[in-house]
Amino acid sequence: MSGRQREKAGLSGFARRLLAEWRRRGWAARGERVVAAVSGGVDSLALLLGVEELTRAGLLGLDLTVAHLDHGLRGARGQEDARWVETTARGLGFEVVTGRGGVGARDNLEQAARRARYEFLAETARAAGAAAVIVAHTLDDQAETVLLRLLRGSGADGLSAMCHERRLEGGGEVTLRRPLLAWARRADTEGYCRERGLDARRDEMNDDESFARVRVRRRLLPLLETFNPRAAEALARAADLLRDDAAALDAWAARLLEEARAAPTESDEGEAGAAAWPLSVASLAAAEASPRRRAIRLWLARGRGGLRRVELAHVLAVEKLLEGTRGGRVAELPGGARVERRRGRLLFLGERG
Amino acid sequence: MSGRQREKAGLSGFARRLLAEWRRRGWAARGERVVAAVSGGVDSLALLLGVEELTRAGLLGLDLTVAHLDHGLRGARGQEDARWVETTARGLGFEVVTGRGGVGARDNLEQAARRARYEFLAETARAAGAAAVIVAHTLDDQAETVLLRLLRGSGADGLSAMCHERRLEGGGEVTLRRPLLAWARRADTEGYCRERGLDARRDEMNDDESFARVRVRRRLLPLLETFNPRAAEALARAADLLRDDAAALDAWAARLLEEARAAPTESDEGEAGAAAWPLSVASLAAAEASPRRRAIRLWLARGRGGLRRVELAHVLAVEKLLEGTRGGRVAELPGGARVERRRGRLLFLGERG
Repeated sequence: MSGRQREKAGLSGFARRLLAEWRRRGWAARGERVVAAVSGGVDSLALLLGVEELTRAGLLGLDLTVAHLDHGLRGARGQEDARWVETTARGLGFEVVTGRGGVGARDNLEQAARRARYEFLAETARAAGAAAVIVAHTLDDQAETVLLRLLRGSGADGLSAMCHERRLEGGGEVTLRRPLLAWARRADTEGYCRERGLDARRDEMNDDESFARVRVRRRLLPLLETFNPRAAEALARAADLLRDDAAALDAWAARLLEEARAAPTESDEGEAGAAAWPLSVASLAAAEASPRRRAIRLWLARGRGGLRRVELAHVLAVEKLLEGTRGGRVAELPGGARVERRRGRLLFLGERG
Repeated sequence: MSGRQREKAGLSGFARRLLAEWRRRGWAARGERVVAAVSGGVDSLALLLGVEELTRAGLLGLDLTVAHLDHGLRGARGQEDARWVETTARGLGFEVVTGRGGVGARDNLEQAARRARYEFLAETARAAGAAAVIVAHTLDDQAETVLLRLLRGSGADGLSAMCHERRLEGGGEVTLRRPLLAWARRADTEGYCRERGLDARRDEMNDDESFARVRVRRRLLPLLETFNPRAAEALARAADLLRDDAAALDAWAARLLEEARAAPTESDEGEAGAAAWPLSVASLAAAEASPRRRAIRLWLARGRGGLRRVELAHVLAVEKLLEGTRGGRVAELPGGARVERRRGRLLFLGERG
């Protein structure tokens, strides 16, 4: 037996795969403060149990805090879940932080709940001085996300779905990690919880077919698996490939924007130093369509302070300005700003313009 | 009424949309010799009738030849179809060329039939001195193709599916055009044939659910449309966006390969001038993952004369060579060739190496 084989003897298959993923991503095995997001559902319970098993085996030595948010949308059941997570996690030897509420009256319940959850995680991580937050999204969640984005007509950015590791918004230097995303099927998390003799909490929203995600999980993915039993893996693989593509094209777009930067002239002095500096039409026109459109999006985001309500049609309208040979042409943007072509340059003009 | 409005008065909706697409793509409206691939099915019949309607209205003036291939797989029914296409197309005032056979004993029937069809079209186009071949793939075909590729785990290249216009393989300067791809749903082609009072031929293969494409059409796409009635359009839009991405990344990869070209040294003189020239490890290592992997694929294709049996795993094995600091490391390729890292360069070594 090699050292590696010896250290894994007696480990469950789930813990073994979790450890392999942890190492593959180059995450520290010990000494780090980490926050684990635990709803009490089967996926997050499996993640917590997996970390606990690896800790007992001496293979992980994290300073782990369990974070649980009760959105306050499920009344007594939400409170029961919170108490259950507290008891279970303490029983496993972990510290627990619980929070409640945070979902205001926003247009989309799923989005509002998601935002409240991430705000709570960032806050908990900051308070704990944690280096990372781990969340229990699985390969099934990834496949579902790809399908939902595909149904919306997304390109590479949307189809990239969730990444394995990224900076947590609002969390400073804290990273968000998804240790189950690359490999764990829902059957794996369910099987492992059963193996460990623990019943996870059930969220009745997971059975509510008025949510598109629930219908994707229950109807669409099973149908895809009649074509290819590894359909979820195929979708996740596409997401990984497209994420690399999108990252490369974004880097290209940022370079393109620098290269196309045109010197401001006296007549548009008011715009000098603006985030959306004047662009050389000739530079942009010579670039490939895909990085050019990404550069235009990036430029509009800088000028407008975001891309709210900006559609592909607006980007194409700005791109169209590059074709004309006469000056003075304009593309209108949502919210009153506009882009003008003047003497071989594109100018971003805010509402004041 | 404007001139444009007047010229379209009395046109069917189908012909109007066909004309709009023809103009949007910048295809010549008259004077060109064009070959139309007509199986006799509802899509190709609708395309032919649409061209005929626009010709009668004086809006298109093409020198059109109808090409029909009987694959010889359906016995008497195939021959009936061929006669029917001949009679119908002649009745509409078009020349007809028919062919038969060409499907050898190959592993995949669909692929073999497809290859025979395209060889026949290229031959017909060359013989007719045609500038273009038009085929009747619809938006439904495009959505089906995206789904089939997705089920296989394809990245941007596969998910780009069919393009609206490209060079026809084996057809010299002949272009392949798909005038229905961007907009026509199967309901449009069926409705238009009905409007024109013609019953298209029925291919029983279109009802055979042992073909994955038939199951995608009958089961998967209808389920997707319960989520989004415009799911087919969303899939086609993703394909268009990813096609632009893939084209830009391929151009980047080709540039990267030039930039990474390392001077051959005396010891590998035998390889000088090879299509897969030595590459500088430092140049490749500095590049982004997505264009780098594409550059490696391109390089392997040049060295091996193709990518048969080359999988993502082989590309990643070659990429892995870039990480090491010691020389002399090797990645094996299917068919006996290999890549070696020597003194800061990657060398492609054929079977002789």
